[in-house]
Amino acid sequence: PERDVILQERLERIDNEPGAKLGEAMSAAQFLNSPYRLPVIGWRHEMEQYTTQDALTFYKRFYAPDNAVLVVGGDVTASEVKTLAEKYFGPLPRHGIAPRERLQEPEPNAARRLTLSDERVRQPYLLRRYLAPSYRTNEASATPGNEPYALAVLAEILGGGSAGRLYRDMVIGKQTALSVGADYDGGAYDLDSFTFYGTPRQGGDMAALEAALDQQIAALLKDGVTDQEVADAKHRLEISAIKARDSVSGPTFIVAEALGKGRKLADVQAWPDRINEVTQADVMQAARQVLRVENSVTGILLPKAAQEASQ
Amino acid sequence: PERDVILQERLERIDNEPGAKLGEAMSAAQFLNSPYRLPVIGWRHEMEQYTTQDALTFYKRFYAPDNAVLVVGGDVTASEVKTLAEKYFGPLPRHGIAPRERLQEPEPNAARRLTLSDERVRQPYLLRRYLAPSYRTNEASATPGNEPYALAVLAEILGGGSAGRLYRDMVIGKQTALSVGADYDGGAYDLDSFTFYGTPRQGGDMAALEAALDQQIAALLKDGVTDQEVADAKHRLEISAIKARDSVSGPTFIVAEALGKGRKLADVQAWPDRINEVTQADVMQAARQVLRVENSVTGILLPKAAQEASQ
Repeated sequence: PERDVILQERLERIDNEPGAKLGEAMSAAQFLNSPYRLPVIGWRHEMEQYTTQDALTFYKRFYAPDNAVLVVGGDVTASEVKTLAEKYFGPLPRHGIAPRERLQEPEPNAARRLTLSDERVRQPYLLRRYLAPSYRTNEASATPGNEPYALAVLAEILGGGSAGRLYRDMVIGKQTALSVGADYDGGAYDLDSFTFYGTPRQGGDMAALEAALDQQIAALLKDGVTDQEVADAKHRLEISAIKARDSVSGPTFIVAEALGKGRKLADVQAWPDRINEVTQADVMQAARQVLRVENSVTGILLPKAAQEASQ
Repeated sequence: PERDVILQERLERIDNEPGAKLGEAMSAAQFLNSPYRLPVIGWRHEMEQYTTQDALTFYKRFYAPDNAVLVVGGDVTASEVKTLAEKYFGPLPRHGIAPRERLQEPEPNAARRLTLSDERVRQPYLLRRYLAPSYRTNEASATPGNEPYALAVLAEILGGGSAGRLYRDMVIGKQTALSVGADYDGGAYDLDSFTFYGTPRQGGDMAALEAALDQQIAALLKDGVTDQEVADAKHRLEISAIKARDSVSGPTFIVAEALGKGRKLADVQAWPDRINEVTQADVMQAARQVLRVENSVTGILLPKAAQEASQ
């Protein structure tokens, strides 16, 4: 019966959601070798064949104390938590999990595009992802730099809500977009993405939206960013870091995810300081390194009827 | 030292050949789940880590009599060959090769495009592949039909050299292409491709070439093929089948490849008869099934300088 549950979950969350289908197809095109190309929930035709034994094998292999991170947030002390954790979780035997061989990406050399048309699409949109280092890949590299932090500042300069360049120029200014943004997450264990997204004006076409976005990227690479933009973005990120601490569950979740993905607590805590060190030159170096067409995959989501024209 | 040899081979055959790099990137985008997405020679960064032990393990696992096909062509009789084969190869012990779990493709739902720009490109070209059944997948299906044979006839109608539609209309007629063609192989164990390819006129642009090709495909799907085209294509394929037998090595290779990829000799031998049975309706049913945008991946190879304009 659990298999039917996950098949239903896939139906609702992916198969019936054109945007999720596009995201799934984009990951498959973006990652040439890494398992990040595979949907976490699985491909439907494989899920249909899962057996009880498969589930048990997976459970026994991965649900082990030597593969777990425990993070407790709230009105507690570290020593209280440690005592209780050792009492309740300490007796659980280690499974001796074998080190995982993580498939690495080859150097991408072709810009990729995908078009998904579906009759359920009400609002067409564009999604552009550039392969980028993550905080963890940077920390694990032979020569860690500040590229992830520079990318976070760049995303804020471009896509930081109503203060960002993209909103100001494309939504307010030339009005080529109904909404537009940029984002850098960087939380993945292996490579992650610098992302652009946007929706065209009602009746506006995707080609105009994409041309305007490409113009923004070209202008960025040609003319750079100003000191004021860098300072403003860093200030907004500083505020967001303070806000992120303003709950019990927020920091707990951030720390748990970071540790679970191979990072150290000190690196997570140093985020505001590292952001503060980013210079204009850092931002432009990261932009030139990441925003290359051969690094990119562009997804276009269209209503079914519009497909013929754009193909 | 053998590792250096294959790294050099990869350098010469793929890394220094923009067309091969595009082909590699297209396979990675075309197959979402099947290992056909991986380059046979390997990714460079993984090849660099191969050890002697890896090579030996691979050799011991796969180079076994129970994983081999022996086909002998020439002035011999079956009984002579059998006696000698049993004498020389019979004593080799079976390795007990485990059945392979072949990853199957999910239903594709997004048209994919790739653009590769390289300063070594002298002649830009376009390659379009549609995921298609192979002879083997058809034979292994619950309800084998004649789709692969219909696709072979369709490829001949469209791309059969100077007699094909594409050459007549795009090279001779409207002169949008310097060369153009269509091809269906169908020899893969799992899914295979129906392929279009073309080069634009000197100074001509890729967008015009692709628009002309799309127009041809749209006209095919709308207006169909004539009885005369089907009859002519079948006649040309009949001749090609006769010519294919006109050497010792040719048929030997064809049979060895087919048996090695899970087909039966009788199916290979029946090819001319099965082609002969194909009707106009079969061709159009196969065309409608295979030539859908969501089935397609389009690769564009450009000289480096042209990249900015097309991106």
